[in-house]
Amino acid sequence: MALYVKKFGGSSVATLEKMRHIVSRVLNDKKEEDQIIIVVSAMGNTTDDLLHLASKVENNPFNREMDMLISTGEQVSISLMAMIFNSMGTPAISLTGAQAGIIAEGVFGKGNIVDIKPERVFKALNEGKVVIVAGFQGITPQGDIITLGRGGSDTTAVALAGAMEADICEIYTDVKGVYSADPRIVPNAIKMKEITNAEMLELARLGAGVMHPQSVAMGKRYHVPIHVRSTFTHESGTIIKDSYSKQMESNLICGVAQDDNVARIAVLGLENMPGTAGMLFSELASNEVPVDMIVQSARKLDDKTIDIIFTVASTDLHQAKFVLEQMKQQGKINKVMYDDNCAKVSIVGPEMLGTPGVAARIFGSLGKDNINIDIVSTSKNSISCLIPRTYINKAICAIHDEFFK
Amino acid sequence: MALYVKKFGGSSVATLEKMRHIVSRVLNDKKEEDQIIIVVSAMGNTTDDLLHLASKVENNPFNREMDMLISTGEQVSISLMAMIFNSMGTPAISLTGAQAGIIAEGVFGKGNIVDIKPERVFKALNEGKVVIVAGFQGITPQGDIITLGRGGSDTTAVALAGAMEADICEIYTDVKGVYSADPRIVPNAIKMKEITNAEMLELARLGAGVMHPQSVAMGKRYHVPIHVRSTFTHESGTIIKDSYSKQMESNLICGVAQDDNVARIAVLGLENMPGTAGMLFSELASNEVPVDMIVQSARKLDDKTIDIIFTVASTDLHQAKFVLEQMKQQGKINKVMYDDNCAKVSIVGPEMLGTPGVAARIFGSLGKDNINIDIVSTSKNSISCLIPRTYINKAICAIHDEFFK
Repeated sequence: MALYVKKFGGSSVATLEKMRHIVSRVLNDKKEEDQIIIVVSAMGNTTDDLLHLASKVENNPFNREMDMLISTGEQVSISLMAMIFNSMGTPAISLTGAQAGIIAEGVFGKGNIVDIKPERVFKALNEGKVVIVAGFQGITPQGDIITLGRGGSDTTAVALAGAMEADICEIYTDVKGVYSADPRIVPNAIKMKEITNAEMLELARLGAGVMHPQSVAMGKRYHVPIHVRSTFTHESGTIIKDSYSKQMESNLICGVAQDDNVARIAVLGLENMPGTAGMLFSELASNEVPVDMIVQSARKLDDKTIDIIFTVASTDLHQAKFVLEQMKQQGKINKVMYDDNCAKVSIVGPEMLGTPGVAARIFGSLGKDNINIDIVSTSKNSISCLIPRTYINKAICAIHDEFFK
Repeated sequence: MALYVKKFGGSSVATLEKMRHIVSRVLNDKKEEDQIIIVVSAMGNTTDDLLHLASKVENNPFNREMDMLISTGEQVSISLMAMIFNSMGTPAISLTGAQAGIIAEGVFGKGNIVDIKPERVFKALNEGKVVIVAGFQGITPQGDIITLGRGGSDTTAVALAGAMEADICEIYTDVKGVYSADPRIVPNAIKMKEITNAEMLELARLGAGVMHPQSVAMGKRYHVPIHVRSTFTHESGTIIKDSYSKQMESNLICGVAQDDNVARIAVLGLENMPGTAGMLFSELASNEVPVDMIVQSARKLDDKTIDIIFTVASTDLHQAKFVLEQMKQQGKINKVMYDDNCAKVSIVGPEMLGTPGVAARIFGSLGKDNINIDIVSTSKNSISCLIPRTYINKAICAIHDEFFK
């Protein structure tokens, strides 16, 4: 007997036909004593359709009412899936985020799970029911519906698996697992049998789209093994867990990630004195613009001015411009340049900083293909290079070839 | 300063454009200190669309999961309406049935409001917000979403108005008020300024479609004045309240109602002994077939057999047939005849039984038009006649002419 949490995304439950397929699969895989919790997203494009509807209301900020609206998407899919289980003779019950005890707080549309009170889930499991939980949503301590932002259904699944001490959390998706690079770009990318939480978190943070960083972090916190696998095949995918089963499975490099949602901003001619950078970035932070890579160029200690170059998500560029142009008008900064044609390519491995020569091999492989590197940033587990967006696929292939051939 | 509960139905909120119209109207009518609660139904045909979706799941009974599904319809409309208020500069908050403290119990899809805990509604009003409440839905003491069945949003509005001691509950609809007969059939029908709860309840029960009996009963229980009025004009509609403002306003007849959802069933040749009718109707009741008019014909006391003729809703005829054919197979009854071409025409007035001659005038006006009367039933406030369905409009006009010309 095992307790499973299985998560299916919006494309897996886009139609009743697809839901029936999933229900059949779950029932086929289920051993008699197994207990099953299923976390589902909204059907297909439902969430986008609802957002589109709301966008027709003038000056409509993303707030409590938006979450009230879009949380209906999951409520529709959980009820239909429970109906299908019941119609196939297996007792099932659907639970909203609130009913499943998913307590979340923070900004509406970007809630963080802060607690799980799964009494009702346990009760339903003990009554022999399959429990279908609405992903992507929780309830605040004040009783308001709040959604969890991108990747929210994964986060629901992993957090619930953690709180209930499930044996495994299975994330069903349209890819077969976690690859050494995006297989749509690198055809000979390798599917990993296992990857550690720490490395997966780094890959996710750097743009590997399989899982959202927040949900990987949740798995790390709760020590829940996560199995990323395909909705469409029965073969095993990739297990994300605390450490590798055998030390030998650990590679120098575990994967290459890319992110083309990157814009570069250069603030030129800032006064060369303590606090200048702090002033700039605190202004951005207080306007909710997260900054990624940062380079500060002080030419000489006695230079009167410095330049600061940094990156933000392309999707945040509009807001960043708004903040910086305001600072310019206030005379706090002089000249700003924006470049929305950037991408970031990164490699991730268990001991990146402790392995000399890795950086040199990356730079070499990019140099061979005449790809210019703008900014480099490093962390314990990764090295990232900012490059022109047009070269992104070429760069990934070059680096992947260097380390995986 | 007054506390208003205003209810808008699905056709009034079918599009964002229509919602904007309503919001503008509410804001125009609002005096500065007024407190406003708005109860809304699902947009347009949303509920039917969701029911249609669920009907594609095989052998899908109406149960908890169906309510989980269709309750999303109101959640969408309340959130959008709150967004529109906010975008127009008036703070508003949407509340689901659960959040508004609408406690209901009973069969899923046909819940009854058993309690209202409106703390959150009061709190939001005191914060100066317009409160938008999802109609048609409540939460069971066990925490399950339950819908209230036909006319449920009216019931929510009236119950909430009662619990909060609102000054008035306004039901906005596509007709201008309560008429002496359906104005689509009787062009010279008179719009009533006032009508008592008791008479409105009788009219509603007998088929006047303006309000559902359950919501009228709720208004009677809580002594809430209800104003039935048009969404499209500013003129006053009909006020439903405990008693008439002036005694002289009371008429002999206050209205004519019709119901064409009627089927006639004749059970022939039943054994003429005590308990026979009880056996028949308890079997129907335990299979959830409500029976309306009943006639038992014992020809003579020493006859061996009797016939029982009764009516059910046409929509319940299928279930009634199922029960009766089963009883036939078990030998409990012999011969049954079904007739699904019936209608019921009724007149309602404050003192029907105490006014001799009313029945004679009805029978006379129907007889003049050669309309045959099959069954007659009477109550303190009404007289009803079962007639062939094809004559329904003719019958209503004849009776209305008799009493209102």
